[in-house]
Amino acid sequence: MSADDASVRRPTLTQVAELAGVSLKTASRALNREPNVAPSTGRRVLDAADLLGYRLNGIARELRRGATSALVGLVSGDLTNPFYSAVASGIERELRQHGLLLITANNDEDAALERSLVDAFLERRVRALLVIPSGSDHEYLSIEGNRGVPFVFLDRPPDGLAADAVLIDNAGGARSAAEHLLGRGHRKIALVADLKRMAPQKGRIDGFVKAMHAAGNNEWEPYVRTDVHDVRHAEHAVQELLALDPPPTAIFTTNNRLTTGALRGMRDIREQPALVGFDDFDLADVLGTTVVAHDMTALGREAARLAHERISGHTGPARTIVISTSIIARGSGERPPR
Amino acid sequence: MSADDASVRRPTLTQVAELAGVSLKTASRALNREPNVAPSTGRRVLDAADLLGYRLNGIARELRRGATSALVGLVSGDLTNPFYSAVASGIERELRQHGLLLITANNDEDAALERSLVDAFLERRVRALLVIPSGSDHEYLSIEGNRGVPFVFLDRPPDGLAADAVLIDNAGGARSAAEHLLGRGHRKIALVADLKRMAPQKGRIDGFVKAMHAAGNNEWEPYVRTDVHDVRHAEHAVQELLALDPPPTAIFTTNNRLTTGALRGMRDIREQPALVGFDDFDLADVLGTTVVAHDMTALGREAARLAHERISGHTGPARTIVISTSIIARGSGERPPR
Repeated sequence: MSADDASVRRPTLTQVAELAGVSLKTASRALNREPNVAPSTGRRVLDAADLLGYRLNGIARELRRGATSALVGLVSGDLTNPFYSAVASGIERELRQHGLLLITANNDEDAALERSLVDAFLERRVRALLVIPSGSDHEYLSIEGNRGVPFVFLDRPPDGLAADAVLIDNAGGARSAAEHLLGRGHRKIALVADLKRMAPQKGRIDGFVKAMHAAGNNEWEPYVRTDVHDVRHAEHAVQELLALDPPPTAIFTTNNRLTTGALRGMRDIREQPALVGFDDFDLADVLGTTVVAHDMTALGREAARLAHERISGHTGPARTIVISTSIIARGSGERPPR
Repeated sequence: MSADDASVRRPTLTQVAELAGVSLKTASRALNREPNVAPSTGRRVLDAADLLGYRLNGIARELRRGATSALVGLVSGDLTNPFYSAVASGIERELRQHGLLLITANNDEDAALERSLVDAFLERRVRALLVIPSGSDHEYLSIEGNRGVPFVFLDRPPDGLAADAVLIDNAGGARSAAEHLLGRGHRKIALVADLKRMAPQKGRIDGFVKAMHAAGNNEWEPYVRTDVHDVRHAEHAVQELLALDPPPTAIFTTNNRLTTGALRGMRDIREQPALVGFDDFDLADVLGTTVVAHDMTALGREAARLAHERISGHTGPARTIVISTSIIARGSGERPPR
């Protein structure tokens, strides 16, 4: 279909209004989904537009204007991880308010796949691209950025290019988790962390280590397990840690998947160690799990807001927003050392 | 940008291949993301294409061909519900294999919003539309279906039009949950269900009731709570049920949110009633919750497969695929009556 084909028999707004038996103004309002149109009237106008094929003209008009489509892309990890789905939900709600739609794609934590997804999104003329990048090298994005498509980084800072970013206070959150456990008398505190090469993990590890140093504690050192990348490995790592002699009396896990693994690994242990996990999660209240919480939908919302500002023409320098964290004490993090 | 503007200085595939120092065939393979291209070679070809602006021609070519975009829309409830995000994940993985991308939008369980999202997707020329509909009246979709955009319904059957659908064996799953509890000697079995007007809920309620009738049991009747629509209401409903005299000895919850609410409502009860929940969920193993499980990503995958077949030209009659269920016994459903 080309713009010209459609324009040949283009029904006019007047025809739609006539068929629906409303004024031109009301027809226009109803088609633009403006408020103050009675539902039954709106329905009648939409039915009339459907009947006349008026929608097709919307596309034709868009092509004629040379407008790009009102799509915003998100490249992230798998949506079955509640962190990503909460972020996506926040983004989608914010975009919708600006008449923008969200396209999502899963990078499977693979930098090559991510690159080809970014390409695919740009080919489909997205208005902005939100990325929770898998790798640490984002220079390849800078070529695209120069083509005028704004990028916003979520959860992980851009490396090698200037772009807007919304991050979590990783170091601060980890430091308060560590201080929470130190404050209850723990010294043998295990650290179970994900891939060190990922910036949020690096921030959380640093925050934890700094708190230990500040407290003059080095008894945590035998209990560090990093590059633990999924639930199953976290479960095994925790089982292994608890089999040591002496075992750690407390555990800090640096994301929701590792906390799930730790809970599985601790399931059959009679004397449960203290546990604080980074990221809140569903049912943490039922399980009594103390967490470092942060507002994941706000993270998505803020990123979408920055993207929308860029789409609307904002051209200032790159901005970084940091989402704060707070400890939610539910029992597991308040267990004393044995 | 128009197709003509881009074609003026269109770099050829030959130029890309030359710059990358590879054969035409290899350049084409790399650009089409075909396997059997060494990563370093693929990277070189993509870099060359970037440098020459070859991507812009992809869009130009698409416009020239008059091809519609390779987007598939999903309208569902909020992705923070793990049911929807698991389904979306299954869809996205399957679509990607066919070079299709997923656009998602949240209907907020509102039929009017759903309609306008469907409109927005069709305006953006999606190749197929996957819907987990909020309402029960889908006739308005039939107008669109006639325009040649295939619809696939997920989780809820189409009403008033013929369209492909992927459903869960709701009645069968609920019946086996009921039989599981009856088999452990329970008679006073509470039913906590979501909105009756939603087809999956209706199926689950019917399956439960039929199993009770088949067992000649009517002691469940005082313990029915339907139209319980969220976690908080489920928590209250369960607290209320357990305060009755006599209380139910077992509870069947008909979806993941209600199970979460039930677990919260039971948290402070010393003698825990038996519990079986429809839908499996993260940490159900740690909590020891018996569930009626089904493969949610398979549900999404199958729906995407049906959509892709239609996009590829399949024109047979509407098909329905039913995803089977199974009980996963983890303790909560095996507690005997007090």
